[in-house]
Amino acid sequence: MNVARVAFQGEEGAYSESAICAFFGHKVSSLPRRTFADVFECVQKDEADAAVIPIENSIEGSVNQNFDLLLMHDLLIRGEVVLKINHCLISNPDVDLEMIKTVYSHPQALAQCSAFLKDLGRDIVPSYDTAGSVKMIKERGLRDAAAVASERAATLYGMKVLAKDIADLPNNLTRFLVLSKTDSPPTGKDKTSVVMSVKHVPGSLYEALGELARRGINMTKIESRPTKHTPWEYNMFIDFEGHREEKVCGEALDGLKKRSLYLKVLGSYPASSGPVDSNDLAL
Amino acid sequence: MNVARVAFQGEEGAYSESAICAFFGHKVSSLPRRTFADVFECVQKDEADAAVIPIENSIEGSVNQNFDLLLMHDLLIRGEVVLKINHCLISNPDVDLEMIKTVYSHPQALAQCSAFLKDLGRDIVPSYDTAGSVKMIKERGLRDAAAVASERAATLYGMKVLAKDIADLPNNLTRFLVLSKTDSPPTGKDKTSVVMSVKHVPGSLYEALGELARRGINMTKIESRPTKHTPWEYNMFIDFEGHREEKVCGEALDGLKKRSLYLKVLGSYPASSGPVDSNDLAL
Repeated sequence: MNVARVAFQGEEGAYSESAICAFFGHKVSSLPRRTFADVFECVQKDEADAAVIPIENSIEGSVNQNFDLLLMHDLLIRGEVVLKINHCLISNPDVDLEMIKTVYSHPQALAQCSAFLKDLGRDIVPSYDTAGSVKMIKERGLRDAAAVASERAATLYGMKVLAKDIADLPNNLTRFLVLSKTDSPPTGKDKTSVVMSVKHVPGSLYEALGELARRGINMTKIESRPTKHTPWEYNMFIDFEGHREEKVCGEALDGLKKRSLYLKVLGSYPASSGPVDSNDLAL
Repeated sequence: MNVARVAFQGEEGAYSESAICAFFGHKVSSLPRRTFADVFECVQKDEADAAVIPIENSIEGSVNQNFDLLLMHDLLIRGEVVLKINHCLISNPDVDLEMIKTVYSHPQALAQCSAFLKDLGRDIVPSYDTAGSVKMIKERGLRDAAAVASERAATLYGMKVLAKDIADLPNNLTRFLVLSKTDSPPTGKDKTSVVMSVKHVPGSLYEALGELARRGINMTKIESRPTKHTPWEYNMFIDFEGHREEKVCGEALDGLKKRSLYLKVLGSYPASSGPVDSNDLAL
């Protein structure tokens, strides 16, 4: 499938756009959308050929809303990309650190830099996007405000990097999923993602996971999300190694189906070969 | 243990304060704190005898930060309380719906009322607290703003309820944990919560859950959180039925310990007997 237009949430310069570059190179055009729901809709309606969404961060954990959206839509996972996040403090070009009174960014980025920001002692204002905060500070010509975002966002908007590597923990990785209407053929080093709801009896999740364990299949992630209609019942999102077209993996899927009330395959796709540094991505 | 002072996150009138009333009645004094970290510190430093924190909502899912704080602190879970959340739209007394231009509240409350708010078509501004938004609108005398919060918050601040039951889904329950330096004795209808990290080999979580399943112990919740130090390694937070001082439950805990790299018992406590309606709690 030929991919030309890829949707993402946020403004130009967002980390999701860096993930698009890391996965597709510069041969695609990226389409910014305001919300994750808009991103899913955009592919569903063929306004984009694919989408890139963050699914989990190595420090903050899962992006819960995107698990819910995966369940609600019929898009498939065709790839994953892991990006090393490098947060910077960014201002207008002729501004110094002492002039800053307010720092804007997405709540997750602010949380990841909490030690640095606490030391700095300025007002913290959550906003809907990292790069969007840079853009807003530029457009309004604010001289007492800075944003937490990527170096790439600073370059893109012609802004100044006041401080680099301001995150609390060094190993800050975000895993993104690449979605489209089809998933990917087997490569020999793949992952499969499913969402399932197990029966409400003791041991049901244990029995389900046995379908993987008994076949020596490595589970790489398990995430529970509320079903929303019945309190304290959960959908389990499970990632494991292997491709659904491979024999062992296909048998495991049949076994999981038998042990669940509901199972949906979210796609099989090549596993990431390792993190891409967001600083290494040219504009 | 005698409990006189109970800490919670938010302002007076917060849902967490309703949960304190539901659990302890009116015989305790509630201590508002700005952040969840402050709430934990408050009990750790004996400034409060107990704390009540939200841990999961039946629609939005887990309050991730509180799982991380449970791991970082040495407090124990001594009880749980389930509260039926009834969101209202609240304004100053002499204001009508047509005058409202902006709606303030905690992002989770705003998300839970997204259909109502979309229909309303006003500006949405996230804030740090539901009841705190009511207080702010009152203190500033704003006549073009409303907040999403509980009816109890409206009564407490002498404000007007413009609309009731504005949440998207009817069954909106939040489960709160009661924390202190001790947990609770067995009652015959208890739960035990643990956090553990399993070995990084295929089937390790399956083997661990077998310690519960083999003994017919019902697991009520499983939640994974990143370890933060090593990407894509997780701590598993598991709730199951039974008390750690009971024979079968104690044996299961010994089994879980053997199958994990790390295990911490977060407490045994009486299971909630069912939801308490936030509208039924008098001031």
